[in-house]
Amino acid sequence: MTLDEILEEIKNAEKIVILTHESPDGDAIGGSLAMKLMVEQLGKKADVIIPEYPRMFQFLPSAKEIKIESEMEGNYDLTISVDCANFKRLAKNEYFENAKKTIVIDHHGSNNMYGDLNYVNPVSPACCEILASMAEYFKINISKEIGTCLMTGIITDTGGFRYMGITPDTFEYTAQLLRLGVDIPDIYKRTMGTKTKANFALTKKVIERMELLEDGKVAFSYISTQDELEANAEPGDHEGLVNIGKDIEGVLVSIFIRQKEEEEAYKVSLRSEDGINVSDICLLFGGGGHARAAGALIQGNVQQVKEKLMKEIKKWME
Amino acid sequence: MTLDEILEEIKNAEKIVILTHESPDGDAIGGSLAMKLMVEQLGKKADVIIPEYPRMFQFLPSAKEIKIESEMEGNYDLTISVDCANFKRLAKNEYFENAKKTIVIDHHGSNNMYGDLNYVNPVSPACCEILASMAEYFKINISKEIGTCLMTGIITDTGGFRYMGITPDTFEYTAQLLRLGVDIPDIYKRTMGTKTKANFALTKKVIERMELLEDGKVAFSYISTQDELEANAEPGDHEGLVNIGKDIEGVLVSIFIRQKEEEEAYKVSLRSEDGINVSDICLLFGGGGHARAAGALIQGNVQQVKEKLMKEIKKWME
Repeated sequence: MTLDEILEEIKNAEKIVILTHESPDGDAIGGSLAMKLMVEQLGKKADVIIPEYPRMFQFLPSAKEIKIESEMEGNYDLTISVDCANFKRLAKNEYFENAKKTIVIDHHGSNNMYGDLNYVNPVSPACCEILASMAEYFKINISKEIGTCLMTGIITDTGGFRYMGITPDTFEYTAQLLRLGVDIPDIYKRTMGTKTKANFALTKKVIERMELLEDGKVAFSYISTQDELEANAEPGDHEGLVNIGKDIEGVLVSIFIRQKEEEEAYKVSLRSEDGINVSDICLLFGGGGHARAAGALIQGNVQQVKEKLMKEIKKWME
Repeated sequence: MTLDEILEEIKNAEKIVILTHESPDGDAIGGSLAMKLMVEQLGKKADVIIPEYPRMFQFLPSAKEIKIESEMEGNYDLTISVDCANFKRLAKNEYFENAKKTIVIDHHGSNNMYGDLNYVNPVSPACCEILASMAEYFKINISKEIGTCLMTGIITDTGGFRYMGITPDTFEYTAQLLRLGVDIPDIYKRTMGTKTKANFALTKKVIERMELLEDGKVAFSYISTQDELEANAEPGDHEGLVNIGKDIEGVLVSIFIRQKEEEEAYKVSLRSEDGINVSDICLLFGGGGHARAAGALIQGNVQQVKEKLMKEIKKWME
C-alpha cells in the first residue's frame, strides 16, 4: 500500500522538504504546513519552501517557519510535493529534481504521477482532506494546529463548503475539528470573508470591465500589472476575482485573466458549470487543473487572449 | 415542556397558517415551508402566507403552494410565526392577531415572546436548526424535501457555514442531510452563489459608492429606489449587498441602506464584528435583530440617515 511506503520513506529520511504549486492557495499552504507538523509528530523535521507566501495566510501555525530558499547544504533525502498536478507547476522544483526520493500527494485529476510514490485521489474535494485521512492512517494525533492548517485547505478549496464534490465526510470531519477547538469562523473570515483594500480595488476593476458574451453564458474580465501596482496588491490579493463572473446568473464559463508581470502574457483562470471541462481547455494551452476550475498561461494582449480562449470555449458550447 | 404543548396545539387545530417576517430571507422561507411539510406529516394541512416571495427561492419544495393572502373563510385556529422577532415585523400579522392560538418559533435574541407559546433559542445559528431538533422531538421523518427547506435556512443564515455561532451539530446535521440526498452545492449555488443580473448591477452601484469612515472601521453604501428600477430588481435582488462592506479588511461595522419605495426613508442593515452590538443600535430606531446583524427603518435622505447612524455607532467605537 502506497501509504505504508510513504510512512517508511518519511521515517528513513533525514533531510525532508515540502513543496507546493506556484501562486499557492489555501489548500497548497494549509496542506504544506499540516504535512510539516505531521512529519514532526513522526519524529522528523522538514523545511517548507514557498517563494510567494500570501499575507492572508500569515495567521497559520508555523507560517513563520516557511522558507523562500533552502538554507541547507546539499540535497534533500526526500521531497514531498503537496497539491501540485505536475512538475512544471511545482515552485522551486529544483529541490524535487535533486532529491533522492520524491512523494506526490494530490487531488488534481490532471496529476501526471511525477513522483517516485504518488498518492493521488481526484475524488477528494481538497488535498487537505487526503492529508486528514493520511494522518488517521499514520495514527497521528490531530492537534488544534494541524486541524487549523487542514481546515484552511478544506474551506478554501471547497469555496467555503459550496462546491460539488464535497462529501458527508467533509462535514463530519469539520464538526470534529470544531469540537477540537479549531476556530472555523475565524479561518473562514480570514481566508474567504476578508477582502484586503487592494482586493477591493481590484474587485471594482473586474466588475467595471465585466463582459457577458455568448448570450450571457460566458463572463470575461481582466486585470493588468498596472492595476495591481495602483492597488498596492500583494501576492494573494487577486484571490476570488475569478468567482465574480462565475456567480452571475446564467454564466456557464467564467474567464478571468491577469497579466503576468510586465510581459504580454496572461495567467488565465477558468471556472465552469457542469458539462464544460475547463481542464481540457487549459490543457490545450499547456495548463491544467480540475474539470470545473483550471488555469493556463497564454501569450498575447487582452483581446488576443480572449479570442484564443473564446474559440475553444465556443466548441464546447455547440 | 413547550414542545409537547406545541405538538398538542398542532394536533388539535383544524385551520393552521404559517407566517414569517417581512423581506423574508432563506431562513424565514425555508423554515416556513419546512414547518408546513412537518405539519403535513402530523396529519394536518397548513397555509403558508408570504406576500413578497423572492424568485431565488422558487426552487424549494412546496414553493408553489405559498399564498399571498388567505383564501380561507373565517379565522385560523392556529398561527405559527417562524423566524420573526416581534409582532410588528410579522408579514400579514392580522392572521396572527385574529387566530385562536399562536405559536412563535424563533432564534432572535431580541424576540419579545409575543405568542401564546414561544419556542425561542437565541443560541441557534438558524431558525431552521431549531425546526430540525423539533422534527426529531416530534419523531417526524426528515424527507429530502424537508431537508432541502431546512438546509436552505441553515446555509443562508450562517452565511454559508461561516458565521460565529455555528456549532458541530450544524455540520453533523449537514452531513446527515447530504447522505439523505439533499443537494447542498445546488442549494448553496442558488441561494448564496448566484447573483441575478439585477443583483450584479446593484453590486456595482454599492461598490462604486462605498465609503470607508472612521479610519476604515465603518463601511457605508446605499441604493435608491431609482437604482432598483433601473436594474429591474425583484424582491430578494438586494440580498448580500450588506456584506460587501463587511468583508473589507479592517471594517468593524458595515452600514447598507436601501430606500423604502418612494418615501424619504431607508431600510437600514447593519453588520458588525465582535464587540459592537448592532441590535442595540437598531433598537434605538425601533428595529432589532442579532448582535452582529440587525436592521431598522430610518426617516430621512441618504446623508441624514448616515449621520443618525454614525452618531450612535461612534459611541460604540469610543
